[in-house]
Amino acid sequence: MSRYDVVVVGAGPAGLSAALNAAIRHKSVLVIGPVMSEKLRRTARIDNYLGMPGCSGEAMLTQFRDQVAELPVEFLEERIQTIYDMGDFIGLLRENGEILEAQAVIVATGISFGNTIPGERRFLGRGVSACATCDAALYRGKAVIVVGYNAHSAEDARFISEVAGRTTFINRTGRPVQLGDTIRVIEDKPIAVEGDAAAERLIFKDFTLEADGFFFVRDAVKSDELVPGLRLSDDGIHAAVERDMSTNLPGIYACGDITGKPYQIAIAVGQGQLAGLSAAEYVTKRAASHR
Amino acid sequence: MSRYDVVVVGAGPAGLSAALNAAIRHKSVLVIGPVMSEKLRRTARIDNYLGMPGCSGEAMLTQFRDQVAELPVEFLEERIQTIYDMGDFIGLLRENGEILEAQAVIVATGISFGNTIPGERRFLGRGVSACATCDAALYRGKAVIVVGYNAHSAEDARFISEVAGRTTFINRTGRPVQLGDTIRVIEDKPIAVEGDAAAERLIFKDFTLEADGFFFVRDAVKSDELVPGLRLSDDGIHAAVERDMSTNLPGIYACGDITGKPYQIAIAVGQGQLAGLSAAEYVTKRAASHR
Repeated sequence: MSRYDVVVVGAGPAGLSAALNAAIRHKSVLVIGPVMSEKLRRTARIDNYLGMPGCSGEAMLTQFRDQVAELPVEFLEERIQTIYDMGDFIGLLRENGEILEAQAVIVATGISFGNTIPGERRFLGRGVSACATCDAALYRGKAVIVVGYNAHSAEDARFISEVAGRTTFINRTGRPVQLGDTIRVIEDKPIAVEGDAAAERLIFKDFTLEADGFFFVRDAVKSDELVPGLRLSDDGIHAAVERDMSTNLPGIYACGDITGKPYQIAIAVGQGQLAGLSAAEYVTKRAASHR
Repeated sequence: MSRYDVVVVGAGPAGLSAALNAAIRHKSVLVIGPVMSEKLRRTARIDNYLGMPGCSGEAMLTQFRDQVAELPVEFLEERIQTIYDMGDFIGLLRENGEILEAQAVIVATGISFGNTIPGERRFLGRGVSACATCDAALYRGKAVIVVGYNAHSAEDARFISEVAGRTTFINRTGRPVQLGDTIRVIEDKPIAVEGDAAAERLIFKDFTLEADGFFFVRDAVKSDELVPGLRLSDDGIHAAVERDMSTNLPGIYACGDITGKPYQIAIAVGQGQLAGLSAAEYVTKRAASHR
């Protein structure tokens, strides 16, 4: 049975930053998660991370991982089933039934958007986007459709319309929206996204809309599946964290998208640094009190 | 008189990240502050910022600034005297008496450690350090002296001693400390740091201590000088911020070291991103409500 000072679950920007900083504090560190994030692999260009202008998501994450791999950090490419407090340590249940032991765990698994409509995932990064901040500028002067499922989506449509061209808002919020004269609002349910190399049209029961870009603005799904007992923030979706990235569970920290919006790389890396340093301090203090 | 959507005060990692992200949201942005941070200029090597392994502080900040300068962001190299709410806008008083106007202001001025002893500033980065996390690894196996002024400094000394060699703690906390057998504790007042090319010895009234590294662990000075009415956090030193980096004053945001410890670059860049996006959203909403 393997025992680590710090186990990081999630190998995206937040998890890698957490691992880097815990390792710099001389803790034994294991990172568990896929080598490449699907979301970053589909991100053609990132312009708002300082130090790597105009980098693709894949190149950025590869460079992050190479940097962490220079340190004595172990990597494991699999999924963890459950994380739970075993009293003296934190247990991580592997798919093969084995239990990994850690003094501190950092949860950096990101968020999932649950059900999507056919074609939505397939065309992500090729005409379909889930992030107004990230991708609005790609559609300057072009026709875009914003499919809004949550309360914030009308706000996103307004922002996108300031940057992009002709904007249509598909209102799936369940409430009336006021979007001014420049944004067309349609109250109907989209069935699928279709296209050839990239997304080209949004299919409804009785009609079809064409556009250059399609934004799907949804709420993420609840973040406590992996960690029973994890307290969620007021939105009922994200992990609630203190200023030092600790959760309500002793020794368990969270960072990155799982802690809330905006979902952005520099924020994830900064939170990862803080979580890594906080977890390392927790381990050091625990060792001191056990002496 | 110039009016900007967002004025960023401070041109370090936090301020530049804030400017980058507000500009990406299509706001007019001015950054005010020195081209090079004295603290980063003296930092020979930074290993815990993802994407730029083993970079010097000066090279890192230069690359950050070059990236932001690619965007339509203005820079002004001077000091702001005071920031205050003018009702319809936020005023920034320049040294020449002129007032700059902004809809939102982001305060990213870092922190200051106030009075130091002779030689402490001069040898910063050459044998003198103010950051245990950053620099402990530089003194592996070497003799270090930790001069501790605040409650956390004994903790820092313990961490440094795990990494470095023989460790001496100069207790200026005003309280007794318990540091175990491996750390020598001295209760006396240091007068100066002396050396040739680098710091070599700490001078007391009646004796002198030699070492390879000297850590000065102090509290920062209060952060509300620039912004009258700014609420401080519970420590009475740093700016109190909400999750979105807003302060108690409408339209005024804060990010980076001024918001609290640990003082780290990735944290500053992540907070800057969040402050930049929050300030941009504030400006957009304000414009919508004025329509």
